[in-house]
Amino acid sequence: MKQTQLFTKTIKEAPKDEKSINAQLLIRAGFIDKLTAGVYSYLPLGLRVLKKIENIIREEMNNISCQEVFLPVLHPKEIWQKTERWQYPEMFKLKNRQGKEIGLGWTHEEVITPLVKKFVKSYKDLPVFVYQIQDKFRDELRAKSGLLRGREFIMKDLYSFHQSDTDLERYYTKVKKAYFRIFKRCGIGRQTFLTLASGGAFSGYSHEFQTITEFGEDEIYLCQKCKLGVNREIIQKEKYQCPKCKGKKLVIKKSIEVGNIFKLKDRFSKAFDFKFRDNKGMEKFVLMGCYGIGLGRLLGAVIEIHHDEKGIILPKELSPFDLHLLDLGRKKETEKLYQDLQKQGIKVLYDNREDKTAGTKFVEADLIGIPWRIVVSERTLAKGCIELKKRGRPKIEFVKIKHLPQFLNEKLKTLNAKQKCF
Amino acid sequence: MKQTQLFTKTIKEAPKDEKSINAQLLIRAGFIDKLTAGVYSYLPLGLRVLKKIENIIREEMNNISCQEVFLPVLHPKEIWQKTERWQYPEMFKLKNRQGKEIGLGWTHEEVITPLVKKFVKSYKDLPVFVYQIQDKFRDELRAKSGLLRGREFIMKDLYSFHQSDTDLERYYTKVKKAYFRIFKRCGIGRQTFLTLASGGAFSGYSHEFQTITEFGEDEIYLCQKCKLGVNREIIQKEKYQCPKCKGKKLVIKKSIEVGNIFKLKDRFSKAFDFKFRDNKGMEKFVLMGCYGIGLGRLLGAVIEIHHDEKGIILPKELSPFDLHLLDLGRKKETEKLYQDLQKQGIKVLYDNREDKTAGTKFVEADLIGIPWRIVVSERTLAKGCIELKKRGRPKIEFVKIKHLPQFLNEKLKTLNAKQKCF
Repeated sequence: MKQTQLFTKTIKEAPKDEKSINAQLLIRAGFIDKLTAGVYSYLPLGLRVLKKIENIIREEMNNISCQEVFLPVLHPKEIWQKTERWQYPEMFKLKNRQGKEIGLGWTHEEVITPLVKKFVKSYKDLPVFVYQIQDKFRDELRAKSGLLRGREFIMKDLYSFHQSDTDLERYYTKVKKAYFRIFKRCGIGRQTFLTLASGGAFSGYSHEFQTITEFGEDEIYLCQKCKLGVNREIIQKEKYQCPKCKGKKLVIKKSIEVGNIFKLKDRFSKAFDFKFRDNKGMEKFVLMGCYGIGLGRLLGAVIEIHHDEKGIILPKELSPFDLHLLDLGRKKETEKLYQDLQKQGIKVLYDNREDKTAGTKFVEADLIGIPWRIVVSERTLAKGCIELKKRGRPKIEFVKIKHLPQFLNEKLKTLNAKQKCF
Repeated sequence: MKQTQLFTKTIKEAPKDEKSINAQLLIRAGFIDKLTAGVYSYLPLGLRVLKKIENIIREEMNNISCQEVFLPVLHPKEIWQKTERWQYPEMFKLKNRQGKEIGLGWTHEEVITPLVKKFVKSYKDLPVFVYQIQDKFRDELRAKSGLLRGREFIMKDLYSFHQSDTDLERYYTKVKKAYFRIFKRCGIGRQTFLTLASGGAFSGYSHEFQTITEFGEDEIYLCQKCKLGVNREIIQKEKYQCPKCKGKKLVIKKSIEVGNIFKLKDRFSKAFDFKFRDNKGMEKFVLMGCYGIGLGRLLGAVIEIHHDEKGIILPKELSPFDLHLLDLGRKKETEKLYQDLQKQGIKVLYDNREDKTAGTKFVEADLIGIPWRIVVSERTLAKGCIELKKRGRPKIEFVKIKHLPQFLNEKLKTLNAKQKCF
């Protein structure tokens, strides 16, 4: 894409009311725009990143046999009364013109449980794994930290339905592994730790995936021996000892919750009287699990970790483009290179602007944070070369134009193979 | 995909409260589920069709240089007061915990206009074409006709920004053509007619795209000479004469509005004081157009047109799978064929269920409506063949298994080339 076609521009000064690094950088780089507190628009560059995250999640969910659906936002009051959650203060509520009360979905157990019940009668119909990627709404008292705590946000929520605890347990472990693959592919694998949390009254422990960064809103106790995270409530119960390895070296870290997984057991199947017949003909309640990832929050966490004083440094699987191509006054040659690269299937953002100085182009490329930058200029062409630089590293390489395809093939080889689900 | 992995099942009887054919068939086939009046869930088969439509639209929008964004659902009251549309009775309204009034978006001029204003200062920054594909909400007095008139629905909405009437006019024509390509690819090109409608006080005529079907909610006057549709209001003004060719042979047809395009001119740029500097340094208001397609409604229209007494007949570009493969008791051979077909990149729904009769499998395949059906049975294998049938046509062909790849390549060749935008 030519940068002259992009309607957004980078912004020099971060908006004063945005305290968090993720919102400051994403707004300055033209990835998102704030409509009102906790409510953001995704602009072309930001939407591309969001779609990359979406596709990674979709791939990993499909790999563990999940089926994708798309559930509504408008929920009738009745389904939330069945589970006694209508009073949840964070639920946005409204009335339609007939006076019917409606809540905006912030999670979907109340929709998916009676839906799956329609199709499941026997143990032969189980297990079932259903997920969606969809906008959710929460009336937060204080929306803050940019994409980390919004009133409107995109979630992947997966629900699983089982005939036994063993089967639930097995799948729960499978999801755990899929989640780590997702966070790794998004570039925060090294900073993200499985963390024990309270599962509420009905299922003992649950697990969170906490990404450690000094700008996090949460706090975990990280066991230095086995690398398990433990939240405050649990660690107090366990008397400041790791519940897994019994280690006592625990370090408090600020963190962001990027995912959570829950064993719901029969909490919702009971509320909706969702039973199945087992292989002996006995009626039993279906057992459930639920598993969430906030896509916007994940993007926020990625930015909190991957940036420097100049701007964003995008992990390669999330970048809106593979390469940022900068023309410094040799348009004819740069244009040809742009065409050639695209023919190879490489996605290029081409800074073809004629009214910007080299300095401005460098500064903006650093802010946007595409992993590879190529410069074509009088100076490089004199050597028959282009200049190649990886964002966040000081080294600049000069590569002969004729060697470029092979060179890039190696640097980018993992990029374009994946990412097609529909 | 193996049909045993699909959690949905077909349903014999249509729900009694669903009067429309689209909802009856889509629910019976397991494509959608009704949560409450005018609010539907998309199930795995239905979501696949929806994503096909989404990708067709995305492709055609990107082809006319549009940039995709994703705008919020929660809109602060203030932006709707600026355009004096806060009182619109179909807008769902609510208050957050701070008492702030919020409307749920049913269109996005109030969001996109001030957003694009942030980036456009001069004629050099114009034109801009921005679209999104997103959930919208309308408090309809009566939700009816299944997907044709919902309270929650998915829209593609495009907004264009121009420096002159000429430029707006040129792009408006371009979008018109793109819309016809979309409707053609969705299989309703032949039934869909450009229709003159009132554009409100500010822009004279607007255009609708009306799909003719006896189950439509709208009515148009179709000129038998030039094939222009005219809505009632306009035709009365024009004294029952075609405004284009002056022909007087007009036939009244029931129809569904699948798209509409509007010249907004300066209606919204004035409200948001959105000006640009032209090439002489003069300040002028930006001129705008807006262009909508309802994806669910489009799907509903497709079903109203493409069905028979047995069920859905999907146009090939919209089918969730290329082929429906039915095993009638020769699992080993069918399984091998399933694997081989998938290796060729053909998307197969494989009815591998062992507890269903041949009769049930045929009935369900007809209901789901995938364009091609392949049957493997004792009888076909005795001839070294499979049985191939196109949905909606009586002819059954027997094809030697070794000839199948070539045979399918010809039948399906246009299918898998397209459809990848991110």
